[in-house]
Amino acid sequence: MFGARCLLRALRSCSSAPCPRHRPAARVSVRGALGVQNANGERVTVQGWIRSVRSQKEVLFLHVNDGSSLESLQVVADSSFDSRELAFGSSVEVQGQLVKSPSKKQNVELKAEKIEVVGNCDAKAFPFKYKERHPLEYLRQYPHLRCRTNILGSILRVRSEATAAIHSFFKPSSKIKVPEENFFNIPVFLTVSGQLHLEVMSGAFTQVFTFGPTFRAENSQSRRHLAEFYMVEAEISFLESLQDLMQVMESLFKTTAMTVLSNCPKDVELCHKFIAPGQKDRLEHMLKNNFLIISYTEAVEILKQASQNFTFTPEWGADLHTEHEKYLVKHCGDIPVFVINYPRALKPFYMRDNEDGPQHTVAAVDLLVPGVGELFGGSLREERCHFLEQRLARLGLTEAYQWYLDLRRFGSVPHGGFGMGFERYLQCILGIDNIKDVIPFPRFTHSCLL
Amino acid sequence: MFGARCLLRALRSCSSAPCPRHRPAARVSVRGALGVQNANGERVTVQGWIRSVRSQKEVLFLHVNDGSSLESLQVVADSSFDSRELAFGSSVEVQGQLVKSPSKKQNVELKAEKIEVVGNCDAKAFPFKYKERHPLEYLRQYPHLRCRTNILGSILRVRSEATAAIHSFFKPSSKIKVPEENFFNIPVFLTVSGQLHLEVMSGAFTQVFTFGPTFRAENSQSRRHLAEFYMVEAEISFLESLQDLMQVMESLFKTTAMTVLSNCPKDVELCHKFIAPGQKDRLEHMLKNNFLIISYTEAVEILKQASQNFTFTPEWGADLHTEHEKYLVKHCGDIPVFVINYPRALKPFYMRDNEDGPQHTVAAVDLLVPGVGELFGGSLREERCHFLEQRLARLGLTEAYQWYLDLRRFGSVPHGGFGMGFERYLQCILGIDNIKDVIPFPRFTHSCLL
Repeated sequence: MFGARCLLRALRSCSSAPCPRHRPAARVSVRGALGVQNANGERVTVQGWIRSVRSQKEVLFLHVNDGSSLESLQVVADSSFDSRELAFGSSVEVQGQLVKSPSKKQNVELKAEKIEVVGNCDAKAFPFKYKERHPLEYLRQYPHLRCRTNILGSILRVRSEATAAIHSFFKPSSKIKVPEENFFNIPVFLTVSGQLHLEVMSGAFTQVFTFGPTFRAENSQSRRHLAEFYMVEAEISFLESLQDLMQVMESLFKTTAMTVLSNCPKDVELCHKFIAPGQKDRLEHMLKNNFLIISYTEAVEILKQASQNFTFTPEWGADLHTEHEKYLVKHCGDIPVFVINYPRALKPFYMRDNEDGPQHTVAAVDLLVPGVGELFGGSLREERCHFLEQRLARLGLTEAYQWYLDLRRFGSVPHGGFGMGFERYLQCILGIDNIKDVIPFPRFTHSCLL
Repeated sequence: MFGARCLLRALRSCSSAPCPRHRPAARVSVRGALGVQNANGERVTVQGWIRSVRSQKEVLFLHVNDGSSLESLQVVADSSFDSRELAFGSSVEVQGQLVKSPSKKQNVELKAEKIEVVGNCDAKAFPFKYKERHPLEYLRQYPHLRCRTNILGSILRVRSEATAAIHSFFKPSSKIKVPEENFFNIPVFLTVSGQLHLEVMSGAFTQVFTFGPTFRAENSQSRRHLAEFYMVEAEISFLESLQDLMQVMESLFKTTAMTVLSNCPKDVELCHKFIAPGQKDRLEHMLKNNFLIISYTEAVEILKQASQNFTFTPEWGADLHTEHEKYLVKHCGDIPVFVINYPRALKPFYMRDNEDGPQHTVAAVDLLVPGVGELFGGSLREERCHFLEQRLARLGLTEAYQWYLDLRRFGSVPHGGFGMGFERYLQCILGIDNIKDVIPFPRFTHSCLL
């Protein structure tokens, strides 16, 4: 069995240009080149885009980046290579030898033997200027080019890493052998999106998840809404308490963050340093503390006793607004806080009735996090057929939801699940203020640039 | 750092019911229980749905399935446990001891100490009958329940496994340490779907992929079309030949199939045995042979010389129809065949001009496979700005595609990519005739049952 890595190695060696010294120069990524320990003249070819040019009397320095890492590879060339075409933004192929760098800034540099400009870049027309740090708002105007900047590169590498981490949270690689005494197994599932559909699957598989684009026609220009966003949804059968559900939510949040921190520390550092000073400490604070749990009723009490004046007066039975969410998180010491047991009248029909009173609640849970507000929403689902029938009848939905009632008629089980907005999650760990900067092509009201 | 497996183990041991013998019974999945070697009275709790009930004079046999494997766990109980509620389709929680089974049919069985019916199932109303093998067409009427059958369970487990295999083809787990001498690295990316958008990303990252739902308003009732299907798309920068692109396509096809075969052999076997006899050999034949390559021009010649009469007369410049695709695959010995270099007039503006003549072609490639026809479509992309400008001008699209031209103005690179229909891929490896059976909730023209 040959993996992608193997294959690409093979095809690269096939297709590399004939080499003057008879040994073909292996194509390597910038990340690969930078990772070489004790470089000793290995002949390689590197391809990428020029991020900087510095021309000295006898030497020419280029920095070449191919998106594989934040760091670029320093190319050192004889000044005879100098040409106007070697400009910021051009694509190049460089053949040469990997050597130990005399500078402390990097371990390795590439001594160029051959530099080919693959595609020119007209510096005057190119919207990004050499050595300038453009604000995120400016970059947002160029959705087709902004991924070529350091900051978007880092954000998108983190996005990719977080995506992989979420997949492996739910589906540990089957190549990892489970020790015999640990005979737990998590069957998981990718399905089309939608919680009710996940519930269908959870009637046959005990843990299911889905991760994909979700569309909302929300007429909002906020910093935390998009018309198309990505959502992680999970549903767990034979689950009987919100406590159990919250453990999975907290673990998903923390495991994913720790994987990202360990796999792309430099990308995270760039965001923390230049975009969100102080975010490093805030994230550590979130990761090392247990998330808090308060009931909706307690939350309303806290808000009523607040010295702050709210635009929307807090009141039992009313929805929590962004201003309330922010206050609650602050009040809880900037630790993510689960708010549980919401008024029945506020929540959809499928949430499990707590059968309490006189203030009637359902077993719903939202996770509020610093900076972003609501990140997760979940609940136990109503698995008791007669409760659901009554509720649907009152809403006049009985006919449309026969199929949903069927799930309770035939081998019903207690179950619960949640959804997490993926872009908000990235905002939360990186400290990125505007949701439009953590998705490659943001679509929002009256705007679909690409 | 605690993984999902760890966490669920923790929460399960927290929430398990108090155990009469003071040692809590660990919750295990059916797959986990079946995997126990030399069972020796381990006390466990298993939850799932009853797949069969057999009542003998003094003993009661149940088969319990929770979706974690095709095989169910045999539960052996004293006949005093017998009750009308223990019926096909009911959900149960069984506590007991895992013991070696005296039967050769299974290694392990569960000696029940306690059986709790969690949710009843009215056998008369339940659309699936005990011990009956319902045809796929019949099951299709019950999209909310069909995942509870053996065959859909198997198909969906294969779907989940293939999804994971595709992700790991493009993004090998970062936990696997790459040996030092192998310093190739594949940066990959999940983005919104769409080839032109992937091209944007490939201007900064050298290998990108996306895998998600795609929507087509095709008015087709065929066995291989859906209004919503899943597509894998990849784009590779600095790639200069169709040969290189085809190597990646062939490798994706074969690596994914081999991973699925090795990770869920029983599920694949069930499909091959009951749905598509002969498919096992057909798949092996595809996997062990190199895929073939013919040009479009050669393909038309082959079709012209065919003894068969086609509804659409084969002619240079006309599209290949399903009947042609089928003939070509048959002609090539039922091995997948790449058809390359299509007439320029048939293909979209972004495909790379081969600058040949008088029959003008572009560097496009389709992969045709037995049973399904077109599975992959791809091409080299036109990276030369003036070629693209001319083509867009002739189509009157210059204004709308300024952003796409920008990608060629600023550091353009040769590149190419492809898309693979995921449902068709599953059809191809499993031998499933109708595409509606390999996706949890099929949406097609005038039908959106769920």
